[in-house]
Amino acid sequence: MEVPAPEILKKPLVVPHKILMGAGPATISPRILHAMSNPVLGHMNQELFQIMDEIKEGIKYVFQTKNELTLAISASAHSGMEAVMSNLLEPHDKVLIAVNGLWGSRAANMAERYGASAVKIVTSLGDNFGFEEIEDALRKERPKLLFIVQGETSTGVYQPLEGLGDICHKYNCLLAVDVVASVGAVPFLMDKWGVDAAYAGVQKALGGPPGVTIISFSSSAQKEIFRRATQSKVYYWDMKILGQQWNCYNNVRPYHHTTCSTLLVALRESLAIIAEEGLENWQKKHEQGYRRLKEGLERLGFEFFVKDENKRLITVTSVTVKDFDWMELVNYAMKRHNVEIAGGLGPTAGNILRIGVMGFNCTPQTIDRVLDVLEEALKHAKTKKAKL
Amino acid sequence: MEVPAPEILKKPLVVPHKILMGAGPATISPRILHAMSNPVLGHMNQELFQIMDEIKEGIKYVFQTKNELTLAISASAHSGMEAVMSNLLEPHDKVLIAVNGLWGSRAANMAERYGASAVKIVTSLGDNFGFEEIEDALRKERPKLLFIVQGETSTGVYQPLEGLGDICHKYNCLLAVDVVASVGAVPFLMDKWGVDAAYAGVQKALGGPPGVTIISFSSSAQKEIFRRATQSKVYYWDMKILGQQWNCYNNVRPYHHTTCSTLLVALRESLAIIAEEGLENWQKKHEQGYRRLKEGLERLGFEFFVKDENKRLITVTSVTVKDFDWMELVNYAMKRHNVEIAGGLGPTAGNILRIGVMGFNCTPQTIDRVLDVLEEALKHAKTKKAKL
Repeated sequence: MEVPAPEILKKPLVVPHKILMGAGPATISPRILHAMSNPVLGHMNQELFQIMDEIKEGIKYVFQTKNELTLAISASAHSGMEAVMSNLLEPHDKVLIAVNGLWGSRAANMAERYGASAVKIVTSLGDNFGFEEIEDALRKERPKLLFIVQGETSTGVYQPLEGLGDICHKYNCLLAVDVVASVGAVPFLMDKWGVDAAYAGVQKALGGPPGVTIISFSSSAQKEIFRRATQSKVYYWDMKILGQQWNCYNNVRPYHHTTCSTLLVALRESLAIIAEEGLENWQKKHEQGYRRLKEGLERLGFEFFVKDENKRLITVTSVTVKDFDWMELVNYAMKRHNVEIAGGLGPTAGNILRIGVMGFNCTPQTIDRVLDVLEEALKHAKTKKAKL
Repeated sequence: MEVPAPEILKKPLVVPHKILMGAGPATISPRILHAMSNPVLGHMNQELFQIMDEIKEGIKYVFQTKNELTLAISASAHSGMEAVMSNLLEPHDKVLIAVNGLWGSRAANMAERYGASAVKIVTSLGDNFGFEEIEDALRKERPKLLFIVQGETSTGVYQPLEGLGDICHKYNCLLAVDVVASVGAVPFLMDKWGVDAAYAGVQKALGGPPGVTIISFSSSAQKEIFRRATQSKVYYWDMKILGQQWNCYNNVRPYHHTTCSTLLVALRESLAIIAEEGLENWQKKHEQGYRRLKEGLERLGFEFFVKDENKRLITVTSVTVKDFDWMELVNYAMKRHNVEIAGGLGPTAGNILRIGVMGFNCTPQTIDRVLDVLEEALKHAKTKKAKL
C-alpha cells in the first residue's frame, strides 16, 4: 500500500463529556444519545417511513403549522437557508435580506450564487428591525422574497414577526424566516403569522443533534416552487422531489437520497420530548432559564450587548467584553471545566461573549454550575488582562 | 395552541434490529452504534478538530491518496456527487457522463442544474465501459470533466479504472469517480490511477452510518476550484470554504457550518476499524463474502444479471427475476425475518433482485443466514407466482 494505515487511527476514541453553553449545539439528553445507538434502518423501511411521518407531525407542532410541505433535510441547518433560497428564487429574482448579524449576510451570499439579486437592509449590531423600515424597503424594492432571522445568534437579538406576513403579502412578497436559534424557546406561529418558509436545526432549543434540519413551506410557497420556470439549482435541496420521499404530496415515496435513520430517530425523540412536556411548558422553561442566567450575569457584573431587554434573544445571551481577556475566559472554562462558552461570531468576533441556555441545559442546576464556572473564569481573565 | 401536541409522538420509539443486505445502508457494528451514543461535541471543540484530522488520514488511506483537499461533507452520498459537479463545473462547461445505470443519470441532472452541458455515453444495462469507447468520446467532445461510477449498484456492475486517468489527462480532462458502493471492498488507488475527484458514503463497504460523505480532490482539481471565474453555486458544498473548516489549506478553521460530531465520531470509528484490520484484509473479506454468496445463489438456482463475472461488482450482486414474484420474496424476507433484500432501482426496477454483502454483514454466518432466508422466501415467491 502506498498510503499505509494511519497510526493515529489505532488509538482508542475518547469523547469527553462537555457542558455546551455556547450558541449551539447544546448538550444532548441521555435519552436522545441512547436513541442514536439504535440499529440503522434502511431508507426505504416501513418503520422509518413511520418515524418520518411522526417527525412531520412533530415539526408541524413546533412550527404551529398545517403545511403539507413539511419535512427534514439530511444536513446541517445551513441547508435550510440554502433550500429556501434555491427553491424560492430563480435567476434574476430579487430577494430582500434583513441583516442584523452574520446569518443575513450568508443568506445573501447563497442567493447571489443562484443568480438572484440580493438587496440588503442592515440594522446596527444589537438592534432589530421595525416593520416600517421593512415596509419601506418592500415598497421600494418589490422583492419576491423577504428573508429575516427570528433569533440572531451572532448578536443575541430577537426579531418580532407577528404581523410581518401581512405586510409582505400586501406587496406580493413571500416571507422566509430562520428560526434555528429561536424555535422551541419562543413562540413561533408559522400559519398565524403568515410565514411562507421556515427552517431550523434541532441542536439548539429543540434539544436534538446537529446534522439534520427541519423545514416547512406554506401553500403559497409550495405553489411558487411548482410554478418555477427553471429547475432549482440543487438536487439535494429540491423540494419537488425531496417532498415526494417525505410523502408530502400524497404519493408514493420514490428514492431521492439515503436518509440517515440515526439522525431521524434522534430528531423524532427530540420532538417527542417536547410533545410530552408540551410546547408551552418547553418555552416557559427557556424563559425561566434565561431569567436565571441574566440575574447571575448581572450579579457577576457583566453588561449586556443588547441593551433593550425586549430585543434580547432568550436562548443566546450576549455580554460585552471590556476589562477582561475574552479568550482567556473561554479557554479557562473549557480547559478547567469542559464548559463551552462562545466568543463573538462574524461582526461581533472579539467584542462579545455568548452564553446559550437551550434544550437539555435549560435547568437551574446547569445554569448555576455555568455561572460558578464563569465567576472563576472571569477572575482569571481579569488577572490576565491586568498583566498586559 | 392551534396545532396540538401530536398523539403519535407520545408512543414509545421502537427500532427493530434488521439484517440490511440490500444495496446499502448495511447493518452497522455494535462498536460504531455505541460510538454514536457518545456526548455531542461542539463544532469548534479541539477534540473534534482532532477527530477530523484523524478522519482525513483515514480517508486518505481508504482512497490511497495524499491529496490535501480531503474531507467529509455533513450530508448523504448524493452530496458528494453534487459537490464534484458544483465545484468543478462552471456554467457552459461540458461534462462527459458515462451512464451504466441510475447514478450517471443523476449526475447529468445535477450538472445541468448548474448550467453545464452534460453529454452522455450509455452502455447496455449490466455491462461496463471499454476505454476505447470513452477515449472516442473524449476526443470528440473535449469535456472538462469525465464522470464515471466504479460500482454501479442499480445494476451490480463493476467499472475498471486503472489507466483511465492517463487517457483523460491526455485530453486535458479531469476524472471524477463515484466509489460509494465499491471503496473498501475493491482496490481504489486514487493517486496511482490519476483520479481527480472521488467520493463515497460510508454506509456500504466501509461499514459506517449513512448521512456523511467522504471526498477528495487531486491537486489539479483543487487548482481548478481556485481558478474558477464564477462562484460555485452551492455554499454548503463549496470546497474553497469547507476545505478551510477541515484545515486542508494549512490555515485557521473558520466556521463554515455546524458539523455533526455524532456522525464524525462514527465515521472515525469505521475508518479506525479498517485501519486496524488492514485495508487489504478488509477487501479480501469482501471478495470472500461475494464468493460465498455467489455459490449459495447458484445452488438456489438464481441467474446473475451481470453475465461476465469479471464485470460484477462484488458488494452488490444482482440476480434476474423470472419464475417468482420478486415483491413477494422481498416482503417475505423482511416481514418474516427482518432481512432486507433490494429489488431493482431506476432502469432495473422490477427486473432484478440485489443482495449486498458489505461491512459488518460480511461474515460467513450472516451470508449463510441470508441464503437460508432467501431459500425459504424463494419457495414462497414461486408459489405466489404459480397461483397468478
